[in-house]
Parts: sequence; C-alpha cells; structure tokens
Amino acid sequence: MSAAVELFSEQGFAATTVPQITERAGLTTRTFFRHFADKREVLFGHEDAPTQARAFLAQAPPGMSTAEFIAWGLGLMARERFDGHRDELRVIQALIDSDDSLQERSLRKREMLNSLVGEALRSRGLGEQRARLLAEATVSALYVALDHWLNSDTDVSIDALALKALAGLHADLDGIGTVPRPAPSIQQARRPSSATPN
Amino acid sequence: MSAAVELFSEQGFAATTVPQITERAGLTTRTFFRHFADKREVLFGHEDAPTQARAFLAQAPPGMSTAEFIAWGLGLMARERFDGHRDELRVIQALIDSDDSLQERSLRKREMLNSLVGEALRSRGLGEQRARLLAEATVSALYVALDHWLNSDTDVSIDALALKALAGLHADLDGIGTVPRPAPSIQQARRPSSATPN
Repeated sequence: MSAAVELFSEQGFAATTVPQITERAGLTTRTFFRHFADKREVLFGHEDAPTQARAFLAQAPPGMSTAEFIAWGLGLMARERFDGHRDELRVIQALIDSDDSLQERSLRKREMLNSLVGEALRSRGLGEQRARLLAEATVSALYVALDHWLNSDTDVSIDALALKALAGLHADLDGIGTVPRPAPSIQQARRPSSATPN
Repeated sequence: MSAAVELFSEQGFAATTVPQITERAGLTTRTFFRHFADKREVLFGHEDAPTQARAFLAQAPPGMSTAEFIAWGLGLMARERFDGHRDELRVIQALIDSDDSLQERSLRKREMLNSLVGEALRSRGLGEQRARLLAEATVSALYVALDHWLNSDTDVSIDALALKALAGLHADLDGIGTVPRPAPSIQQARRPSSATPN
C-alpha cells in the first residue's frame, strides 16, 4: 500500500483522507474498506492479520525445540514482513513517531503480538507464565532488532539480529537460577511505601 | 495511603475527590498536593519515585555479576514495595483493572521501570541493546510474578518468583544462539505484505 504511505509522508498522516489514498492508488473507496477498517490499518496490517499469523504459527514443522520454534517464527516474520521493505518501513516508523494515536496503536499491536506468540507457545506445551515471559522476551528482541535494522545499514536480517539479542539475553541470565536471595544492604531512606509497580 | 485506597474501593476511583481523601486521612489538601500531583499518584507512587529508585540502584554492592545485580534489585523492590502489602495491592490491582486511565498510567509506569532498569544496566557496562532487552525481560518477569503472587496464596516472595521465571526463560532460550536460519517451509497463502510489526 505504498500510495498511502507516500501521501502520509508528503502531507502528514492526519491531513490525508481515504479518498485521496484511493485516488492515488487507483482503487474505489469500497475496495479500500473491504481491506482496511480505517487509514491507520494501512500502516498496521489487515484486520485478519492475527488470524493469518495464528494459522502460520500452527504450521511449524513438528519436533522443534522451543528455541528452534522461536528461530523459525522470527525467520518467517522477517521474510513475510521485513526483508526487502526497509525503506518503506523507515517511512512508516517516522510516521508513527510523529503521531500520538499511531504510537498508541503501535503499542496495542505489540501487545497483540505478545498474546499471539504466547498462545502459540502454550499450544506447544509451555505453561502459562513461562509462555508469557518467553513471548514478551521474543517480541522485545524483535523490536530491539527492528530498531537497529531501521537505524543502520546492516546487511544482517532482522531475525538474525533478534536471535543474536536473545543469545545475549541467555548469556546475561546465566546463573540466575542459583543466585541466593541477597541480604538487604540499604537501610537508610526507607519511607512508607506507595506499594505497587503498576 | 490506605485512606485513599479505602475510598477508591468503597465508592470507585472516579467518584472519589481529593478533599474526601484528605478528610479521611486527616490531612490538609495542601499537604496532599505536596506529595502527590493528583489522586492517581496515590496508587502509582510519588513523582520523585524514579529518582529514589535510581539512587537505590546506584548503591548496589560492587563486584556483582549481571545476574546477581538483577537478583539484588528484585529483592530490594520486593522488600520496599511488596512484602507485607499483598492485601492492599490486591485492592489496588482491582482498581486499576476497573479504570482505563489507570490502566494507561500503569503501562506508562511499566515503561518507566523498563527505562530505569535499562539505565542501571548500561551504567554497569552493558551495551544499549543488551541493557534494553535484559531490562524488559526482568520487568516482564516481575509482572508475571506479581500476577501469580496477587492471584494465589503462595508463601514465596515476589523476587523469588521472578527469579524462578527468569531461570525458566534462561532454560527456554538454551541453544538459541546456535539455531541455524531455518529454510522457509510455508509457501502458500503469501500476499503483499503490510510490512510492519509496529
């Protein structure tokens, strides 16, 4: 949908209308609304993207370890969504950075991706908490990799960058299961707690 | 600040006013506003909480490994904010779940915690990407642990639960650095990509 991205980029996201997009793209507005609920969706994917992604993930070859499944899923995503699209994605990223409602939508998309990956991991037998944490770490690694990939000229693919980030995380967590609960070492400056990280 | 939490819980967050809170707590509104910018802050901590947290983290004993620092920080947080406050935190969690603006604030607080932990890790020598990913994984583990701790009667402390979750993540990522890029195995159902996870 680069006609829309071009227009957003030329005249701003807020100022661009769906009729302008369909005119530039040579579509009817009827066709547009068959694919997208609104103009934000052009940047964030079809409404049925989660269903598609779910179906893709369910087709993972059998017999993979958890780590292999993560690598497979990241490779699939890189091929489907990133490889060969870097310039367009840079424009989209700049658009998102410039608009609060797009940033909010971007956060919601990240949450949805966390859920999808968590669901796939649960369906492969991981417990609830373990699936959630691994899904969030994987999605974090994807976003860290995306940031680097968009803001550099690296020839390394997104999935390879994300896997490298996860390998670094694995190394940094080495020994985490055997650290004893440390004694408190800070006694000063206590005050009544506001008591939540939420 | 349990006077406020009591009132929120009795009559709802939206319906509760600052004068009601100060009356119940036996404070002047002037004193209230010296500590809190608004009533939401009662649930989320003082405005200077990040500064305090930064100062605490900077006091970590020297010579710790990264994993030991994470364990130390989680232990500190558990002692300062969680241990002994489970009932109050359950009420606060229910309040947050019931109000959109509180949920949004909660997400922002989580982002702030990610930044704080990332900053502490960078100041200990970790590179930018590595610090960000480890910080996000640690905060994810804390929230996974919090969920379990609030919704069960476990006697295990939050920091021990979070460490156990991180140890599980470490195990699940085993071998992630050596998985070869898998060949594409899904050829059907390709369609032009909407090209972003954002």
